[in-house]
Amino acid sequence: MSKLSIAPPSMRTRIRRLAELASYEKESLYSILDEAYACHVAFNDGKSTHCIPTAFWRIENYLYIHGSNGSRLAKALLSGEQASISIAHIDGLVLAKSAFSHTMNYRSAVIYGVFEQVRGGAKKMDALNAFMEKIAPGRETEARPGNDKELAATTVLRVPLDEVAVKISKSGPIDKPEDVDLLIWSGVLPLTVSRGEPSSMGDSAIPIPKYVSNWKTIN
Amino acid sequence: MSKLSIAPPSMRTRIRRLAELASYEKESLYSILDEAYACHVAFNDGKSTHCIPTAFWRIENYLYIHGSNGSRLAKALLSGEQASISIAHIDGLVLAKSAFSHTMNYRSAVIYGVFEQVRGGAKKMDALNAFMEKIAPGRETEARPGNDKELAATTVLRVPLDEVAVKISKSGPIDKPEDVDLLIWSGVLPLTVSRGEPSSMGDSAIPIPKYVSNWKTIN
Repeated sequence: MSKLSIAPPSMRTRIRRLAELASYEKESLYSILDEAYACHVAFNDGKSTHCIPTAFWRIENYLYIHGSNGSRLAKALLSGEQASISIAHIDGLVLAKSAFSHTMNYRSAVIYGVFEQVRGGAKKMDALNAFMEKIAPGRETEARPGNDKELAATTVLRVPLDEVAVKISKSGPIDKPEDVDLLIWSGVLPLTVSRGEPSSMGDSAIPIPKYVSNWKTIN
Repeated sequence: MSKLSIAPPSMRTRIRRLAELASYEKESLYSILDEAYACHVAFNDGKSTHCIPTAFWRIENYLYIHGSNGSRLAKALLSGEQASISIAHIDGLVLAKSAFSHTMNYRSAVIYGVFEQVRGGAKKMDALNAFMEKIAPGRETEARPGNDKELAATTVLRVPLDEVAVKISKSGPIDKPEDVDLLIWSGVLPLTVSRGEPSSMGDSAIPIPKYVSNWKTIN
């Protein structure tokens, strides 16, 4: 991918705390999104502010979510209210020599925008196929495809990745000069998401697809 | 822990979609929170709705966060605005025989409430020590403690865990009767958070604490 830049920050996405951790490359944003399966969608419905975890995927410069037509999330987001979406990977605990210098390594993205509905059977199906391609590449040609009724009962929404704040913290502990020589262990305790052994259901004669047999080794 | 119950659901926390996945046990809620390092805090500042990832910890029936006094998050939450906090663990991808029956296994909590400031040096320090105890048990007696200036520059906030929706999905694929006999692989691709090899900084003569040497094996 060429080094595309995220649009210049708005008042909402200008990173003021620890500004040196801000990233303005699309590549960083896309990689944070593509590695995650869930995002947290915040919206205000006129009565309350809500924060709802939901599955998502990305196609080009849009973040997509889906839900049943009747879901509160879909209904509220289609009212045209501005939403904010947060995604974070926690990569490690950073143990410094003084209590207040402890921190975490993380990669986060906060997105602001208004969701729009993806309309039309073909466009919805294309979007949902891209979700399946993220979950299990190639499976959209294997699983029984959605029928018209299933498709009609599903709302697909998307928000452009135009107003975005990306923050990446990836370092060892940073101690204050007066703490550096203290005889206290410092370092990083890493955290990663790892893939467990797939569990197969049903008929053992059914061939095992590549995305299952490779699950633990593919990136 | 005794089987304490979460308070009866409010209009906001009554789970209407997939109501059979709702959990009303404090034990489930606490375990979802204690296993996570980051939450996503949503609030509306009168102009926009925001969703900000931040570290958190739990003491008894409160969720705690902290930040610099000047941070937008701390300032906005201290205005008394209602907030919503979301936490989710994604435990696996559930591959059913039909595209629209795919789902994920997850454990999530959505909390509604108004944050209050933890005031007084001793109370703030107790709260921050509990955070350290979560990160690295025992380290609060080893690391150089915060001084008055550091403590004064830090805002500690908490919200009661009284209005909460907990949802747990933990199953194999559930196929529609007409799909059950299709010769398509179905099963679960598990995801877990795992702990990597600690990386030590600085003086190799410094003893390695138990929470570091045990990092990969302790729960």
